[in-house]
Amino acid sequence: MTMMKVVSAAVAVALLSGPAFAQGDLAKVRAYRQANDHAILAEYFDLLSIPNSALDTPNIQRNAEFIASLLRKRGLQPRLLPSRTKGSPPAVFAEARVPGATRTIVFYAHYDGQPVSPEEWHPGTDPYRPVFLSTSIEKGGRVLPAPGRTEAIDPEWRIAGRSSADDKAGVMLILNAYDALVASHITPTSTIKFFFEGEEEIGSVHLGEILDAHKDLLRSDLWIVADGPVHQSGRPMIDFGVRGDVNMEITTYGSKRPLHSGHYGNWAPNSALRLSKLLASMKDDQGMVTIKGFYDDVVPFTDSEKKAFAAIPAVDEQMKKELGFIRADGGGRTLFELYGYPSLNINGIRSADVGPRASNVIPTEATANLDLRQVLGTDYRKQIQRVIDHVAAQGYHVTDRDPTDEERQRYEKIAKVTSDKGGYNAQRTPLDLPISRSVIAAVQAASGGPVVVEPTSGGSLPLILIEESLQAKVINLCIVNHDDNQHSSNENVRIQNLWDSLEQLAAVMMMKESSPGPVAASPVGPEPRR
Amino acid sequence: MTMMKVVSAAVAVALLSGPAFAQGDLAKVRAYRQANDHAILAEYFDLLSIPNSALDTPNIQRNAEFIASLLRKRGLQPRLLPSRTKGSPPAVFAEARVPGATRTIVFYAHYDGQPVSPEEWHPGTDPYRPVFLSTSIEKGGRVLPAPGRTEAIDPEWRIAGRSSADDKAGVMLILNAYDALVASHITPTSTIKFFFEGEEEIGSVHLGEILDAHKDLLRSDLWIVADGPVHQSGRPMIDFGVRGDVNMEITTYGSKRPLHSGHYGNWAPNSALRLSKLLASMKDDQGMVTIKGFYDDVVPFTDSEKKAFAAIPAVDEQMKKELGFIRADGGGRTLFELYGYPSLNINGIRSADVGPRASNVIPTEATANLDLRQVLGTDYRKQIQRVIDHVAAQGYHVTDRDPTDEERQRYEKIAKVTSDKGGYNAQRTPLDLPISRSVIAAVQAASGGPVVVEPTSGGSLPLILIEESLQAKVINLCIVNHDDNQHSSNENVRIQNLWDSLEQLAAVMMMKESSPGPVAASPVGPEPRR
Repeated sequence: MTMMKVVSAAVAVALLSGPAFAQGDLAKVRAYRQANDHAILAEYFDLLSIPNSALDTPNIQRNAEFIASLLRKRGLQPRLLPSRTKGSPPAVFAEARVPGATRTIVFYAHYDGQPVSPEEWHPGTDPYRPVFLSTSIEKGGRVLPAPGRTEAIDPEWRIAGRSSADDKAGVMLILNAYDALVASHITPTSTIKFFFEGEEEIGSVHLGEILDAHKDLLRSDLWIVADGPVHQSGRPMIDFGVRGDVNMEITTYGSKRPLHSGHYGNWAPNSALRLSKLLASMKDDQGMVTIKGFYDDVVPFTDSEKKAFAAIPAVDEQMKKELGFIRADGGGRTLFELYGYPSLNINGIRSADVGPRASNVIPTEATANLDLRQVLGTDYRKQIQRVIDHVAAQGYHVTDRDPTDEERQRYEKIAKVTSDKGGYNAQRTPLDLPISRSVIAAVQAASGGPVVVEPTSGGSLPLILIEESLQAKVINLCIVNHDDNQHSSNENVRIQNLWDSLEQLAAVMMMKESSPGPVAASPVGPEPRR
Repeated sequence: MTMMKVVSAAVAVALLSGPAFAQGDLAKVRAYRQANDHAILAEYFDLLSIPNSALDTPNIQRNAEFIASLLRKRGLQPRLLPSRTKGSPPAVFAEARVPGATRTIVFYAHYDGQPVSPEEWHPGTDPYRPVFLSTSIEKGGRVLPAPGRTEAIDPEWRIAGRSSADDKAGVMLILNAYDALVASHITPTSTIKFFFEGEEEIGSVHLGEILDAHKDLLRSDLWIVADGPVHQSGRPMIDFGVRGDVNMEITTYGSKRPLHSGHYGNWAPNSALRLSKLLASMKDDQGMVTIKGFYDDVVPFTDSEKKAFAAIPAVDEQMKKELGFIRADGGGRTLFELYGYPSLNINGIRSADVGPRASNVIPTEATANLDLRQVLGTDYRKQIQRVIDHVAAQGYHVTDRDPTDEERQRYEKIAKVTSDKGGYNAQRTPLDLPISRSVIAAVQAASGGPVVVEPTSGGSLPLILIEESLQAKVINLCIVNHDDNQHSSNENVRIQNLWDSLEQLAAVMMMKESSPGPVAASPVGPEPRR
């Protein structure tokens, strides 16, 4: 929800000249869906019925095999792509080659889901036994009996179950968009590859390895990531980038053992004071990073990106009010402008204790956890090194483990600096690439209204792995309702969102090359109240 | 133990001209003790057998009544002095008036003890069933059978039990020192008052109230606090001061709810960064306080105090090595010099989390607990106000509770600053007062060797309450072995320390006025290895 509050602002309209795909084809796709809605959802319920925590090895394998069977049912020849780590979820791959197509698009979704706490779900429901709801539980929805074969399926109904929204919806929609084209005798304008990952929710640990091991198989021009909620207004949303990310931890030291603050106070060094000074030295009063070179490598937003952001009605003032502060950090820059800067955030600090458990002690150590977001141009390894250099410039000996007695006798100030191994850089796809224009045009034509174009999210996903390993572009097409309880209990998808996204995915599969004209952006009105 | 490491350094020798008391009287005191050691210890064992946690109301009352009975046994007329709070431990008071005496000395000890964890005590021992040990448990001591009436009591034996050292030893020694004088027909040179407190270990919550309610009864020139371990070298130690103390807590705020550090990072204010900057602004790189006026009111050490400290062999280098750092805070000042400065210590910081439980979040709030020690001249209320003024000068609206929505919309930066209600100021008794000289001389004469004179401890006790309420001076005579496991399991007192302190207390009871000459201080050699 927090995420959605901001995303709700990211409304930009892209208007393109010329038809995005053959007129009439969209009607065929819709007719196919309307004629097959019961069958589509029956298959979807089967998929949702297989538990899919990435760490539940037997079941995650069942998911992969079931999806492979769905691909086979469609006349394709699926392959499971395992990593070298035994038991880790395989990716499921298939290819629908289009003779003469000059483009290859990989349609990506992930079939694993967050772990569940069944007791937190609505009484009578089970995360792995999907049901229809009249609407979301929060809006007073109730569980419906399964509709009969001839009964109409209300598009306002929800389907509740783990991954009904995140992200088996993506798997299902990609498969059925493809079905709609085949059944309607529409030839895709690109060769289509299917790539369904099985460990997104645990950090895509082996994604890079699988990509590298299958570069030929996965050769492609574009990845369409079908995942995530659309704009809060209900409008379609396309994200063209994500920030990179890496975590660091810094620990400062004082005396080897906790000391009585009276007997040693203000003589023995205080680790908490040292850490405070170190952190304070990293940012100015505006919250901008003062570490040397921190912003040096930033690739600024392009004019198109700036225009797209500028087209988004600013919510900064509204959000400040809602969040309870009157001055934001960033030296007057807007939230979206700051998406273009690498960030340094203190996630937490711990040193001894406060409140009732505080005692008059000189803490032996103090630790801060930092989150460093990357933007286009910055490299997380270089940024880590800059932080380390900054710490060293404050007079610290920097190490990656607790200091030895010998080190304590050699260095005046010692800081332990560690970083997580899962760091990665930002990924961004230019908005004005022909293929970007094509996707925007196709989605817009399919939805018949303005599309929210976000040049980059403030958040992070390791999409750079795809770009680096395969030299392919990545665009994230959001597919489900914003109030989907993603990652939580009573996860649900609104059926109309499925149908809309099915058509948008089909539109991308049959999209023409876009015209070379500029992306026209214009502000939209206020979002509907809900 | 931590405390003792420093105290071990505070060795100063005070040499005084002229006899401190009538020669021969000390021999009488010793003879009395030698003749009565079994009886003295039998009574002591009875006292130690009554559980004495200050919060154990029925038992703490039993202690008070037992001590009153001991005073009655000595021909005195004890009174219990309760506070207005029902169930709080009463002070036990008695007076031995000496006709013609121009001085009144209150001998203070406390009869309550720290709570116990019996399972942590040596097998076969019980905190409230005192036993003889051959030596301390840590040195391989074993429990001894109670010695027969004619059996010699080895002064190296220990008596183990809760409060055997801290501080029923004080109660017992004061009573028996008085006995020794009475039995030896030695008239004390001062009127003697007995004051035994019952809630020192929980912060002397009602001490001020009891003193104020009985000002006439407690009228006195000097309080001798008989409590605490002697110097680690085994030498007698007298403390002439304590620092005052007060705790504060500062909380800074960011957004009202935790925010995703990607979607809002470096735009929404970070409470942990704000707190870091605030704390960093309070001290310089040498660890000296930069808050305006913080050192203004300090009354510097007198020449006598400086000389006494200077006579103490410096242990700073040794301690730094032991504690694992090579540069101390304080701008080159020694540990003892810094005892003369008010301090500001960060006891702890908490904001969200670090390590495995860290998440990429912008923390909503960050809190630091501060410990502010007071020295002669500084007032804890003024020092709190100075910190508040400093926080305000950094642009903060200062409040004493979490901010309302309205305050969040009015003030850019908000800090909650609270302080504990138990604050108090420093107390120090000048070394060169006639009465100070007399005490030093008496203790030195009784012990026959150099005495450690510490002008002030770095630690804190609310002795200022005594000085302010009664206009009496306070001197702390340390009485037990340093390795007494004070506050811990296997608390014990070495019997020779009891005998030494008994003689020193008797010496103070029979001390003459001191000569007006200067206190001569000379360094002592290195402490014995142990």
